[in-house]
Amino acid sequence: MKIGIFDSGLGGLTVARAIVDTMPAYDIIYFGDTARTPYGSKSRETVIQYACENTELLIQKGAELIVMACNTAASVATDVLRKKYNLPIFEVITPAASLVASFKTIRRVGIIGTRATINSNAYTEQIAKHRPDIKVYAIPCPLLVPLVEEGWIDKPETRMIVKKYLHPLKVRQIDTLILACTHYPIIKPVIQKKIGRRVTVIDSAQAVAQQLLHHFRDINHICTNETQGNYQFYVSDITPHFEKIAQSIFKRKIPLAVASSANF
Amino acid sequence: MKIGIFDSGLGGLTVARAIVDTMPAYDIIYFGDTARTPYGSKSRETVIQYACENTELLIQKGAELIVMACNTAASVATDVLRKKYNLPIFEVITPAASLVASFKTIRRVGIIGTRATINSNAYTEQIAKHRPDIKVYAIPCPLLVPLVEEGWIDKPETRMIVKKYLHPLKVRQIDTLILACTHYPIIKPVIQKKIGRRVTVIDSAQAVAQQLLHHFRDINHICTNETQGNYQFYVSDITPHFEKIAQSIFKRKIPLAVASSANF
Repeated sequence: MKIGIFDSGLGGLTVARAIVDTMPAYDIIYFGDTARTPYGSKSRETVIQYACENTELLIQKGAELIVMACNTAASVATDVLRKKYNLPIFEVITPAASLVASFKTIRRVGIIGTRATINSNAYTEQIAKHRPDIKVYAIPCPLLVPLVEEGWIDKPETRMIVKKYLHPLKVRQIDTLILACTHYPIIKPVIQKKIGRRVTVIDSAQAVAQQLLHHFRDINHICTNETQGNYQFYVSDITPHFEKIAQSIFKRKIPLAVASSANF
Repeated sequence: MKIGIFDSGLGGLTVARAIVDTMPAYDIIYFGDTARTPYGSKSRETVIQYACENTELLIQKGAELIVMACNTAASVATDVLRKKYNLPIFEVITPAASLVASFKTIRRVGIIGTRATINSNAYTEQIAKHRPDIKVYAIPCPLLVPLVEEGWIDKPETRMIVKKYLHPLKVRQIDTLILACTHYPIIKPVIQKKIGRRVTVIDSAQAVAQQLLHHFRDINHICTNETQGNYQFYVSDITPHFEKIAQSIFKRKIPLAVASSANF
């Protein structure tokens, strides 16, 4: 089974890493659309088109299952992709939302993400479906992706901007914060510090990897090979910081090749 | 004569405005590649490809002359475009560099731009050609474009980041600062304040409009109609803040249509 994963850029590698850590024997093919990144400030129609093109590239390269490791794409393109393509489509929103809904003690949830993800209301609707009693406060934080991509992980300016974005959530006294963007786990220590220790900060990488594992169990397709699967990584543009960022996210050196999904 | 202007997004509207103000009777067609913005952190090859596609879109829509109102594209794609297309290609680097070189009192010049523009050394080489005695200090400021696009024009965080970026130029005691990115004029007051009143801050919009006027005089093609030309504005994606930003740059309401230059 070859798992296809795509993101607007490199953030999705946090999801790829969780999948590799959980299911090392599966083959992985990753595509980061760095030539058109970021998706979070683009329109719904454009993001849907890019998500379709990325899916077609991954299918053409042998993927039998797709993981949208991009919250922006997941928030607007999931239904379109499931209707259009005849293979399982996983996304990063439902697993995190279900995880939150399953904890009875959670009452006040904050969500931070790109403008497109927050405007879609996807998390809020998913949580409300299971737990209408949970209060949800969602805040777009569009500058966090460029700050992470610049490697400004723990600079005073980053801490100041994070503090500004999180202020309305602190006032609301949230007990849980969802990082609704696959870039944000990279600055999780800053986020945790600014929101306070009492708040549980969760990201979707672990949740989606667990959901995938359950899926393989359900369909009796558990790969127990002891040998590591074959991992392939493609990007649509090799940018200056690319390898450094990829390595810092994936915690190992990965070979990157170039591919284009445009007008597939 | 229909003037085609393109940029990676909206910053190039500062150039379009200068052209319209200087030569109101000419027809203008503008294309902002908002579906693939920003260019400044992408590779040379990708930016050249996008510049060719944008040029072909403008030619197909009737442009008889091209202005690259994007420093990143100008810094890497000018030679390719001039070889490939049989029409005059103007860019934003030479006019600003020539302007600086023409002032005998200028001795120490700072340049700020995207990473791609700064890495290309295009400004430094242009200035050195005429005035090898001028000391040039160039600094990439990749976060300024996202800050401008977010409308964070005069926030404390923007002032702090601008101050941090400009610090090495202040230490070098520059007398002139070139804004080598068409987005930066929008935060010119912040930049002027942080670099100090004694430093002359120049942007390329006026310089390129003047160069264009000289070109039309040289070829005896001066349009003296009293009626305003026909202005068309296209973008590859209609994004949430789009109209507000466009209006704040262009200082008037402009109608926007969607066009794609991808794989032209």
